[in-house]
Parts: sequence; structure tokens; C-alpha cells
Amino acid sequence: MVYVLELAGLYVFATSGALMAVHKGFDIVGIAVLALLTALGGGILRDLVIGDVPPAAFSNVYYLLVPLIAAAVTFFAHPLVQRLSFTVLVFDAAGLALFCVTGTLKALDYHLGSVQAVLLGVTTAVGGGVLRDITARETPALVRMHTDLYAIPATAGAIVIAVANQLRLPEAAFAIGAAVFVFAFRIVAMLRNWKAPHAWERKRPV
Amino acid sequence: MVYVLELAGLYVFATSGALMAVHKGFDIVGIAVLALLTALGGGILRDLVIGDVPPAAFSNVYYLLVPLIAAAVTFFAHPLVQRLSFTVLVFDAAGLALFCVTGTLKALDYHLGSVQAVLLGVTTAVGGGVLRDITARETPALVRMHTDLYAIPATAGAIVIAVANQLRLPEAAFAIGAAVFVFAFRIVAMLRNWKAPHAWERKRPV
Amino acid sequence: MVYVLELAGLYVFATSGALMAVHKGFDIVGIAVLALLTALGGGILRDLVIGDVPPAAFSNVYYLLVPLIAAAVTFFAHPLVQRLSFTVLVFDAAGLALFCVTGTLKALDYHLGSVQAVLLGVTTAVGGGVLRDITARETPALVRMHTDLYAIPATAGAIVIAVANQLRLPEAAFAIGAAVFVFAFRIVAMLRNWKAPHAWERKRPV
Repeated sequence: MVYVLELAGLYVFATSGALMAVHKGFDIVGIAVLALLTALGGGILRDLVIGDVPPAAFSNVYYLLVPLIAAAVTFFAHPLVQRLSFTVLVFDAAGLALFCVTGTLKALDYHLGSVQAVLLGVTTAVGGGVLRDITARETPALVRMHTDLYAIPATAGAIVIAVANQLRLPEAAFAIGAAVFVFAFRIVAMLRNWKAPHAWERKRPV
Repeated sequence: MVYVLELAGLYVFATSGALMAVHKGFDIVGIAVLALLTALGGGILRDLVIGDVPPAAFSNVYYLLVPLIAAAVTFFAHPLVQRLSFTVLVFDAAGLALFCVTGTLKALDYHLGSVQAVLLGVTTAVGGGVLRDITARETPALVRMHTDLYAIPATAGAIVIAVANQLRLPEAAFAIGAAVFVFAFRIVAMLRNWKAPHAWERKRPV
Repeated sequence: MVYVLELAGLYVFATSGALMAVHKGFDIVGIAVLALLTALGGGILRDLVIGDVPPAAFSNVYYLLVPLIAAAVTFFAHPLVQRLSFTVLVFDAAGLALFCVTGTLKALDYHLGSVQAVLLGVTTAVGGGVLRDITARETPALVRMHTDLYAIPATAGAIVIAVANQLRLPEAAFAIGAAVFVFAFRIVAMLRNWKAPHAWERKRPV
């Protein structure tokens, strides 16, 4: 079940990378590279840090094939995929929710501290998108102003997991709860255009 | 023999990084950084992923000295080096051929699957160039539109190696054959300006 | 003592990342991301290369909390922090001096060769700044033209450490000496606007 969700998450993350490549006029190599980087980059970073090498992305061939299939589908059907952009965003929210939960749990399994596990869970969820944007020479959506909340729902979900682990609460129930919470938080943030605060400015008299 | 070719490959990769730094007006630090990143980046990424740490680039001091010598030569003689730009491209094709073959073989030695080994072989060959372009704030040549085939010859060569390994065919013969094939494919692609296909567009009536 | 200096170094490196994020209009997520990357990126790269995983940045929770505190302080007090920009640069020089020394020593402890240890010491000191600039879509200050010497003092200090280690000279004394030397070299380079040389150009008659 988690495995099927993971493959679905990889598929949509890869699609977001492939769509950016199409949008920027990249050729088939660029489409495949951005699809793979977006889908697998966050998890590879996490696995290098915790010392799980080769990273999970290289342990199971479907983790590589699914992003390549997403790249191929986008290559041929990108006008259709773009018309489904809200659907893609909903699946992307599901991928965000899933990967921040599984990333945090994996870091805790490797005996990292709670704060460290939260950071790695968020890295798993958002790292691929940062690598996609850097490679495509875009300002990373993660740091760009005026984007809807993305890392903050992931951080909130990772904190829920870490606290539950610290208090020895039942892991499975909290994992599912945290994932649902991240998904809902992200969807509402998109629908309501919630933004994160910018650096505090003292009000000046005009 | 392979070792001499490797050092020659590192030299030309480093030269391409150093020339970009000169072209962008970077100082001697920038020239050295781009030379090292271009020559060693792909192999370091591969070794981190397969878990061979410290990476080979740090095991033999000549792997560091050769790129630094290339940086120094380019620093003083860049007008001459630029006049030799076709020669540099020919050696670059040789480096591409060599590193995709040695990278794929090393990944197979570390018991990675065929698809994973192909991906790592290509990463070895093209990863340094991507890091060079990202650090110099260029759109990576790897994904940019309108560049001649580069990753595709490397991918084809890596697939030959992986298939030969799967079928237990003689490794040395296929390694040499694949390297010659990648080199020739890349040279022909340059001479004929072969491009990779862009995302498929439905023909519209005007 | 070294530990307190390390935390102070992380604080100022993180502040430089957070200030760049404020300057570019990034939101609170971007401020935290750039603060963490700038402070911890160089050390994480070094630890991945030498195989010390999880990296030191993940072993002690204060290594994560100090950059986050710097991000929070900058978030609220950035006009004040900017007015202290010379003070920040002095502390940044102290961080540069400290991290190039501790990075080189750690690489030597892991039995890397002298040249390799110098390269990793410099990476520890300057790597975070490069990741900050790449993520914020700036040309890395490390390679940009017309910046005052930064990597060169760090390289000189790392070479002092490596030579002292090779000659079995007393480590503690040389570590302190090298750090003071790097700090002074960097401060003088800033005050006198010393630049690194650009690629050599033959003088032409007009």
C-alpha cells in the first residue's frame, strides 16, 4: 500500500519536473533528467546523509522506471497533462504528504534525533523540487516569494511524527494521521492562497 | 593504459571548466573551482551513491593535480587553448566515452542493477559538466535546447556495457568497443549537428 | 573553546544566508533554508566525502538550532543586522579561519592525503556560501570577479596545517597560528580590496 503510494508520488513529482523541462524548451534528455531529479533527488539526499548507500532510489528498479515513464508520457502528452494541472497539484500534495512522513520515519529508524529527522523528512519531500529548479535555472519555488505554503505543511507533519515517536505513541496511526493532515493543509493553502510571512518590517509613517 | 586515458580525460574536462571560467571573467579561484568540479564532479557523485568513500578522486593525488595543471595552463594560455577548440572537443568526446564506460563498469562491480549502472555511468560522464554550468550560472548544456547529442551517445554506450555484463560476454572487448562507439557517435553528432527530439507537438492547421 | 567558536561561526554564516534571503524578498522558509545551507553545507559536503555519516551537522542538535536562531533573529531584526554589516564580515572572517582549520584537521584525521585535506578544508569553509548563492540564484561569490580574497586565505591556512602535519610539528600550536593567520589575511584583504588575478592577457599595442 505504502509502496503503491510511493510509486504514485514519484510519478507526479517526475511529471512536475518533465513539465518544467517541456515549458523551458528542453529536449528529451532534459525532460528525463528533470523527471529523475525531481522524483528521486530528495530521497537520495536523505539516504546519503543517513548513510543508507546505495540510496533506496537505486535499490529497486521501479523507482527509476516510474519517473522515466512519467517523462515519456509527458513528452508525448504534455498538452493533456497541462490541462490536468490541478489534478497534478493534488497528486503532488499527496506526494509531499507521503514523502515527508516516510522520510521522517526512515531518519528516526536510523537513530537520528527528532530535530534532525524533521529536517531530513522535509528534505525528502522538497529536495527534489529544489534540484529541479536549480538545474532548470529557476529560483527554487521553495524559497521564492509569493508561493503558496509548501514546506510548512511538510514541516508540521514531520514534527507530528517526531513528537509521536518521542512519546512512543502508535507509529502507524500517527503516520497516517500526519500524512492526511499534510495533504489537507497543503490543499487548503493552495485554495486559499496562504503565504508564509516575509521578514518583519517596522511600520513607517507615510 | 586506462589510467593514462583517465588522466587525459580529466585534463580535457578540466580545461572545459577553466575555459568557461575565463570566458565569464572569473578570477583564478573561479578557474580552479570550475576545473576541479568539471573534471571530478561526475565521479564523486557516482562514488557517493555507490558508497565508495572517500571517492576515487580523493584516493590518488594525480586526480587532483591534473585538473589544477589544466587550470594553470588555461590561465596563462587561454587564447591558444581557445584556438584549439575543436581539438578540445575531440578530447572531450574521448573523456565522455571513457568515463561512461568506466563509470558503468564500476557501478556493476558494486552490484548495482543494470538500469542503475547505466544511470550512474552517464552521471559519471556528464555530471561534472552539469555542476560546472550550475556553478557558473549557465543553463546546463545537458538540458539546454539546440545542443548536439551528448548524453545520448553516453547512454547508448552504457547500455551496451550493461547488456554485455548481463549476458556474461567478455568485458574487456565490450568495454573497448563501447568506448569507440560512444566516441564515434559523439564526433559524428557534432559534425552533423544531430539534436535530440523535443517534446512532441501536434501539428496545427494555420 | 573550539566548540563555542564553532557555534559562533555557524551563527554568522547562517546570518549571511538569512540576510541574502531577506534581501531577495524570500519568505520565512527561504530565510531558514539559506541560513541552514550556508552554515552547514560546507561541513556536510566534507563529511559525505570522508565518509563520516551522519555528518557532524546531524550529530549535535545545537548545530541545527544555532542557524535556526540566526534565521529568526535576522527575520525580526534585519535592519539592525544590516547596520552591523562590518561586524558580520569580521565574524565571517573568523568563521572562515576556524572552519578551514577544523576541516583540514578532520580530513587528515580520516587519513586523507595532504592535497586532498587542503581541498576539503577549503570546501568546509567556502562550500556553504556556494550552496547559498546557487540556491538564491546568484553567481557564487567564490567565483565572481571583483570580490576580495576569500578562498585564497583559507587555502593558505589549510596548506599551513597540512605541511605542519606532514612534518609532525605540534598540531595545536599550528592550528591556532593558521587560524589567526587566515583571519588576519582575510581582514587585510577586505580593508585593502585585494583581488585575485584574472586570466593572463597578453598586452596588445593600441
